[in-house]
This record gives sequence, structure tokens and C-alpha cells, in this order.
Amino acid sequence: MTHHTPRPARSIADLATPAVVVDIDALEHNLAAMSERLPGALLRPHVKAHKSTALAALQRQHGHHHFTCATVREMIGMAKAGLGDDLLLANEVLDAERLAALAAVQDRAMITIAVDSDATVDAAARAGIQHVLIDVNIGLPRCGCAPHDTARLAERARAKGMVVRGVMGYEGHLMVNENRATQRTDTLAAMDVLRAAASEVGGDVMSAGGTGNYDVHADHRATTGVTEVQAGSYALMDTYYSTLGLPFRQALSIVGTVVSTHDKWAVADVGLKSLGMDHGDPTIADHKVWFCSDEHITFATEKSADATTRAPQPAVGSRVRIVPAHVDPTMAMHEHLWLVRGDEVLDRLPIDLRGW
Amino acid sequence: MTHHTPRPARSIADLATPAVVVDIDALEHNLAAMSERLPGALLRPHVKAHKSTALAALQRQHGHHHFTCATVREMIGMAKAGLGDDLLLANEVLDAERLAALAAVQDRAMITIAVDSDATVDAAARAGIQHVLIDVNIGLPRCGCAPHDTARLAERARAKGMVVRGVMGYEGHLMVNENRATQRTDTLAAMDVLRAAASEVGGDVMSAGGTGNYDVHADHRATTGVTEVQAGSYALMDTYYSTLGLPFRQALSIVGTVVSTHDKWAVADVGLKSLGMDHGDPTIADHKVWFCSDEHITFATEKSADATTRAPQPAVGSRVRIVPAHVDPTMAMHEHLWLVRGDEVLDRLPIDLRGW
Repeated sequence: MTHHTPRPARSIADLATPAVVVDIDALEHNLAAMSERLPGALLRPHVKAHKSTALAALQRQHGHHHFTCATVREMIGMAKAGLGDDLLLANEVLDAERLAALAAVQDRAMITIAVDSDATVDAAARAGIQHVLIDVNIGLPRCGCAPHDTARLAERARAKGMVVRGVMGYEGHLMVNENRATQRTDTLAAMDVLRAAASEVGGDVMSAGGTGNYDVHADHRATTGVTEVQAGSYALMDTYYSTLGLPFRQALSIVGTVVSTHDKWAVADVGLKSLGMDHGDPTIADHKVWFCSDEHITFATEKSADATTRAPQPAVGSRVRIVPAHVDPTMAMHEHLWLVRGDEVLDRLPIDLRGW
Repeated sequence: MTHHTPRPARSIADLATPAVVVDIDALEHNLAAMSERLPGALLRPHVKAHKSTALAALQRQHGHHHFTCATVREMIGMAKAGLGDDLLLANEVLDAERLAALAAVQDRAMITIAVDSDATVDAAARAGIQHVLIDVNIGLPRCGCAPHDTARLAERARAKGMVVRGVMGYEGHLMVNENRATQRTDTLAAMDVLRAAASEVGGDVMSAGGTGNYDVHADHRATTGVTEVQAGSYALMDTYYSTLGLPFRQALSIVGTVVSTHDKWAVADVGLKSLGMDHGDPTIADHKVWFCSDEHITFATEKSADATTRAPQPAVGSRVRIVPAHVDPTMAMHEHLWLVRGDEVLDRLPIDLRGW
């Protein structure tokens, strides 16, 4: 079983498939490009996008010591991996047992969690959580309290003995807009709402943003007041974010083995159980993806420009690189990733923050 | 961490969420309904749909001792769980290390794998696999050799010392057709192709079908010659198959906790990382699902029939049951499931066949 005793792999051709591969040069380029625009604490990398303490450690090597998490398991895993300088759980949690487990690692990690209601404030306080941010709704129909309710919630949290470090808001509805001028205007308007809330709440944290508009935040932080950006996808990237023309390279692909070939199509062993599908089908360079099944992807070579010829299908046993449409759920499906340079395999890293 | 030390849970309200729950009465109904139409070896349940040896053991209690698998890990897990009376890997595999691991459990399990090319025949023979089926393409653009190539492949496999038990074909393109008369005609035409291949190949197995047309196979097996049906989804069901009016109940749901409520929507902690999304958004009874994010689902109560009133949103902390659009990839995302009867929690079962 490859899970327990992985074979020594030197080339992508040696990997058991489906295999998550991350190109080290593209990854390093992405981490460097981001840390140049948002150095140090200006970026709070979101670990939900890769769920790997090893990749988080690389982000820390690029100067980012504060991290964003989406689950309690991510938070505790980061704390236990020694990456707990400043961990933000950017989601609301009501589960008393999980909150208690999270509070228990406050001896070794700085733990802050998002709250947006009386119930989430009270659950945090009961568990002994010491630091919170007020999560403010700034337009995305998801979590976050109404802007007019922030001061009241902050007061409630402080009355229960917790430190309110400031506010966060996630303008997720603005992350992907190919009209980047409109995206900028909309982002700044959302930050006006968040800044007003921040002034009501107090504290020194104003956390927002993501990969899709990290540069808007970098350009305007003097006026918006945003102190940190919660980007995650930039490290590995996917086809969804690639439409924006950001300076990040595609570092992630899923390598499959061609297991069956036919006159008009070929099949590789990468399917719905190894690909996040909510943003649609993945892509294969120079090929057309027909559809995915549980364990398979059916694809074809593209016809020539004059539609008269078609390149031959890849041979049975050859490898193909498949680029997912959405990085986060894809990573959550796999037990480990392989760091590669071209076709050379350099290292195997666990995806150790899966689950809840 | 609930993975290692699950809390004692008596009610769905005690479960850490997201939680896979399976209603025991619906499950038992489904298993009984299927085994009545396709008793014993006429059904070869596909474990890819639930990835749980515990659920496979329930299927065996209903008389089915032969199972279908999609991955080598499923095969080996079933063998090691003592469920190896007759295991079919209905997919092609080229990985020498995995095939060797699979061959090594032939001392305790009857192992048969699908082959559809010289390369897959040769890989099976090299690994010491003793039994194969010739996988025949009967219309779905995926695996399976061309019908005219079956006899040659069977001869090649026998020349290498393997037993060719017969043929399989998967008419996946015919599984969901609300015009069931057309589905029947198309299925019978596909079986004509498979039967011709079976007569070329020899052996006594002719394996085909799935949940969507299991009853067509049950009605016509005397003329089609199909000896066994590979259905999986029928046990737990999803919204995709529910359109067909089959006599199976929805046994599976994902329970979430409402973590945030708003004027026009509510948010629960079940998202893209806990739901197979390739068939679209999940459903929530009496509510409208707006969208899913990595860890969240945003939903709203439906307006009244005259559109003048709207039921109140559920309270923060309350539980909601979410029905996935596709059962197989959903199950693959979770570590365990809870057997329930109504809101009462009866047992916790591992989803132990995940990965590859």
C-alpha cells in the first residue's frame, strides 16, 4: 500500500497515480512574488488552500509568520507543527469539544477565532478562547455580522473577558472579476464598510482579501487601513484564478497514468475522487477534456487548425498532467504531494491538515 | 480531535459536523429491495459508492458475496476484511507495485481484474494475477477494448497462464434516462454487443449494469445473458439517481451545523470539501441552496406559495440535513459515517477504503 511505504520515486514516471505534484520552481516564484508585494505580516497565508504544514513552513521561510485557517483541525495541526506564532480561524465554530481542544493549544500558539453572533461569542468564551476578531459581512452572502452590529458584539466579547483584536471581512464575491478596474472599485467600497466597522470595534487588526485582489489591497492599504490579506490560492494556483492575469504560475497538477486508449479518446486514472469539480472540468494542455468519472478522465487530442488531422493519442502507460479548476478541494482529497522540478521528483510531503 | 477519540453521540445534535449520516431503515429497505430483484450472485455490489467494509458486510448479510471495486486499495481492504469470496476490480491497472500487492492477497481472496489492452493483460500476468475479465467497450467513451478485439485479448491472457472468466461492460452513458423505455431499448442493444463478445471470449461471467438500469437487467437477463449487475449507488442514493423513480430511498445525508444566520440566508458548515459537486449543488428539504464554499453552504428558506411570507431561518446551532447530488465522491471525502434512525445515533462505522 503506497500510503504506508511509498516507493522511492525519482521521476514522475515512477509515481503511483493519481499523484499531486507541485513544481518547486513555480511554487518558489509564487511565494517570492507575493512576499515582495505583501511582505511579512501583511500577508496571512490561508492554509486551507494546501492543507500542508510543510508548505506553510515554506511560506514562513518567505517571511509570513501569521496564518489563516478554515477548520479547527488545521489550527491544531499548525500549532502542533510549531507554526503557531499567530493563527486565525477565519470561520465561526460552535462545537464545544473542538473549541476546548483549540483553547488547549493556546499554551503553545497564539489563537484567534472569528465570531459573528451572540452564540459564537458565547461559545468561544465558554471554551476559554482568549482572542477573537469580529467577522463583518461586507457583501458576500455567507458569514459575518451586519456592519451595524459589530460594536455590540465586540462589547459582548470584552465583557466575557476576551481580547477583541479587530475585524475581518471576506469579499469573496469580488475575487474573480476579469474587469479589474471594477474589481478595484468594488473592493475599495467593501473596505469602506470594513473600516467603519473597525473604528467601532477597536483593536489593531483589519483582515480581508484573497488571491484575486491581493494587489488591490497592496496598492491601497494606506487608505483602506487593511493590515493583512488572507490569500491562499496564489501558492499553487488553479485554472479558475488563472483567468485574472496575476503574476502567479500554475504550480499544482495531478499526474495520471493513461490506462486505456481508443480511436478518438484516451482515459487516465484521475477522476472525481481526486479533483475538486465545483469550478468545472480540469484541463490538460493540448487536449480537450470530455468528462470525468469517479476514477477516470476521458480526453482527446485537439484537431489541427484546419480540422483535417488529429495528433495520436498518448500511449497506454504514459503520464499526463491534469490541472484542476479549484485548488482547495482538490488538495483535501489527497494524502500527500510530491515536490518536483520538471519530471524529477524531489520530495514527498504530507497533506496533513485534512478533515475537520 | 474527533477522528481519534469520537465523543459518545446519542443524537444527531451531538455529532461533530460535517457528519455523514446513513438512515438504517432506508439502507435496509434499499438492500432488501435490491436483493429481492437481484438475489445472491446476480448482484455484485460496487463498493466504490460507499468505500466502507462495514456497509459491504451488510450487503453480504443480504446475500451478496461477490463485490465490485474501483481501486486496488478497495480490493485489498475488502480482502483483509474477510470479504474476499469473489472480488472484481472493474478498472484497468498498470501499476506494477499495486498489482503485486493485489496478487499477494490471492491466498485469501478470489481476485479478478479487468483488462482491455495488451499492456493491461501483460501487467496483470507479470504481477501474477490469476483471473481476468475482458472489459469490452459497449458505448461509453471510457475504458474497454473494441468488441472486435476481445477474442484476441482473451487468447493473449490465456497464453500467459491466466484464467479468463468472461467479459464485463459498463453502459454508463445509459444509467440516467428519465425515458425508461428508451433506456431499456438502449441497454438491450448494448447487451447484444456484450453478449457477442462473451461468446467470442468464453468463460461464464457477463457483468454489466448499475443502479440506473438494474431492473432492466433483472427483467431481461434470460435473453441478455448478463450474469451479474454492478450496482453501487442503490444502497445510499443521491439526488442524481432519485430522478428515475427507482424503489430506493435516500439513506445518505450530510449533517451540518448552522453557524451563521442573516435576514435572507443562513450558513451551515458543509461545503465543497464534504460534498461531491460534479453533479451540481446538494439539496436541503424546504430550502433553496444558493451556493457552496470550501467549508460552507449558503441557503434560504423558500417563500410561501403566494410569495408574501418566508419561514424564519433556522437558529444558529441547529442542525440541517444536506443531500448530496453524487454519493460516490461524497463518501470518499469523509473518515467515518454514523448509522442513525431518525435523529437517534446508533453506531459509527469507518469509511476505510478511501484513497488509492
